[in-house]
Amino acid sequence: MLNVAILGFGTVGSGVAEVLTMNKELLAKKVGQELNVKYILDTREFPGNPFESKIIHDFSVIENDPEVQLVAECIGGATIAYEFVKKCLQAGKHVATSNKELVAVKGYELLQIAKEKNVNFFFEASVGGGIPVLRPLSFDLAGNEITQVAGIMNGTTNYILTKMLGEGAAFADVLKDAQAKGYAEANPAADVEGLDACRKTCILSALSFGFHVYPDMVPTEGITKITEEDVAIAASANMKIKLLGRTMLTADGKVCAFVAPNFIPVSCPLAHVDDVFNAILVRGNAVNETMFYGPGAGKLPTASAVVGDLADAAWHLTARRDLDWADADESKMMNVRDLELPYIVRTNEPADKVMAALGEAEKLAADGYKLAKPMTLAQIEASGLQLTAVRPVFA
Amino acid sequence: MLNVAILGFGTVGSGVAEVLTMNKELLAKKVGQELNVKYILDTREFPGNPFESKIIHDFSVIENDPEVQLVAECIGGATIAYEFVKKCLQAGKHVATSNKELVAVKGYELLQIAKEKNVNFFFEASVGGGIPVLRPLSFDLAGNEITQVAGIMNGTTNYILTKMLGEGAAFADVLKDAQAKGYAEANPAADVEGLDACRKTCILSALSFGFHVYPDMVPTEGITKITEEDVAIAASANMKIKLLGRTMLTADGKVCAFVAPNFIPVSCPLAHVDDVFNAILVRGNAVNETMFYGPGAGKLPTASAVVGDLADAAWHLTARRDLDWADADESKMMNVRDLELPYIVRTNEPADKVMAALGEAEKLAADGYKLAKPMTLAQIEASGLQLTAVRPVFA
Repeated sequence: MLNVAILGFGTVGSGVAEVLTMNKELLAKKVGQELNVKYILDTREFPGNPFESKIIHDFSVIENDPEVQLVAECIGGATIAYEFVKKCLQAGKHVATSNKELVAVKGYELLQIAKEKNVNFFFEASVGGGIPVLRPLSFDLAGNEITQVAGIMNGTTNYILTKMLGEGAAFADVLKDAQAKGYAEANPAADVEGLDACRKTCILSALSFGFHVYPDMVPTEGITKITEEDVAIAASANMKIKLLGRTMLTADGKVCAFVAPNFIPVSCPLAHVDDVFNAILVRGNAVNETMFYGPGAGKLPTASAVVGDLADAAWHLTARRDLDWADADESKMMNVRDLELPYIVRTNEPADKVMAALGEAEKLAADGYKLAKPMTLAQIEASGLQLTAVRPVFA
Repeated sequence: MLNVAILGFGTVGSGVAEVLTMNKELLAKKVGQELNVKYILDTREFPGNPFESKIIHDFSVIENDPEVQLVAECIGGATIAYEFVKKCLQAGKHVATSNKELVAVKGYELLQIAKEKNVNFFFEASVGGGIPVLRPLSFDLAGNEITQVAGIMNGTTNYILTKMLGEGAAFADVLKDAQAKGYAEANPAADVEGLDACRKTCILSALSFGFHVYPDMVPTEGITKITEEDVAIAASANMKIKLLGRTMLTADGKVCAFVAPNFIPVSCPLAHVDDVFNAILVRGNAVNETMFYGPGAGKLPTASAVVGDLADAAWHLTARRDLDWADADESKMMNVRDLELPYIVRTNEPADKVMAALGEAEKLAADGYKLAKPMTLAQIEASGLQLTAVRPVFA
């Protein structure tokens, strides 16, 4: 029997307890021994809850109990969670977390500690919720040089954009509806401004290219500036508009990571990922293109990923799995401003002036122009045109 | 350094050699040591080929060379490939194969030998080509009771159906076009009659539910009977028609596996998997639903999966990964004839007679009726109606 401690009994933590209980026998058979929930750490009491007897309030009990081999961190944030995860790893315990902020900000340091202590630090649930993507990217696709990863990784913004495109509704109205349905938080900034997608992009970038990328190294634009004109432009170009986190290898071997609304041709499978679903598309020099689709959040789906991590840790108690990456290196990065990409620009300038400044372009609906050739943002901005918006096309 | 022998230098085998060479340094870094192609077994000579010096014709050289730790089987079929794989496992070598026939027919026996010899027998490429799906299903989703797996797993038939639906073309014409483009073989029976999808369904079933399912235990219908009426019916129901291999857990704990053309609502992500692409949708009691999409065939994509297997074997040279399943057990299976499913039936009988016999139904285009309630095939056939076709709806 292996003992598990769950840190935090909120949505994800209670989901982990539920999955470990609901699928106890099946897991014991697959793992080769039982995974037993020994402690659940939370500041609150849970009278009447089936897990009431497991609740404790003192972290040091977990830290100092050598019988706890596996820890699921479901607190969130990078303060207390950071302190606890660090102490668990230092105490020789394997840790699985669903915490994207923690991994995006402290991943390098925590992986170094895990390596030193010969334990696993896993975080499959931190990107794409229940979707298996980090392990396939790191292990199944090990035979590939990864060339680009692009993901729809925030359910709230994807729900809002789906409604805007499907019903022609305005951003503010859809946001209210999403908040009423529980798909968006009262303070939706981390979602709609792109910060959540940014953290996930950092993690995908580190796993794809081998060095840490911190959130402040990833230019990030959310969806608050998307208007009905953008929706009309997308329809006229036979495209969808989606918030993508992208990280890619450039022609000169640098890495370019950014988060922005992208126009996506309907021939691309990402264009059909709607509502609160997530999908991550991976390109490699052998596999060409593959995509992982599913629920990017939710209690049991996220717990599915955390429990998968616990099982993998149980299979690799001594021979840990190597997910290491190096620390950040700004010299290996290219700012998206300097990368040639296909763009759609919005401007009220006359068409002949637009084409004189930016070359051949296809006039789309509203004030949209699809540029015929890839250009850099820097070049487009240097054109001197009055621009309403400049958005990349995912191609 | 680990030495690899490649059995068979056809499309997949030459792809494996190419990927191991193209990504040599990157692989050495990820795996921790170099993967060196020592031998390539083929009956043919390859004068002028960059791998000419590796070609040998005598299998026993590989079998008896203790320096060969890893073997990639890319011969195909279940005769010579079976004999060679068996001998390699018995000699203590890890084997990765892309051969679905071999795994569907001999998987149980070969896994038993691998277990006995404490080596890995991997076959990620045997289902979905380059798409990572078997490893995510077995390991990442270990926290789930799998309830259903449904896949578009044959690129030839998906290409034909995409053209039939998109262009309203007839089966025979599209088949000729597919043969001209190299997407269909001169003898297309294994694809269009569903045998290829059947073998893959066997493998997914075994990994999902823990016991071997042989091809003759899976009722299989291909796409040769799909007509323009089916295409019209699909359009009128806001659905697509796709060849699916499905395996599912029934309410009474049995397993039902079958291959048949299914109507799929456009709200399902499988409906948007077009042309030669493959996708496998997995449902589990924690993750709900996730889907894996990508190239189901092709030289480098298939090689990507084989090389991923070789890397995993290299990471688990001594602590093998347990992919075992039990032998087949007919008593645990339910015939699809006896499973209640939503159906669309085609019949020229008058509507009132159809509804009197089968209950409420929605009249679709051509001769189609969508039944309001799930029924068994046995019940539908016992209705006494003259039926042109009976096809399940994937819901």
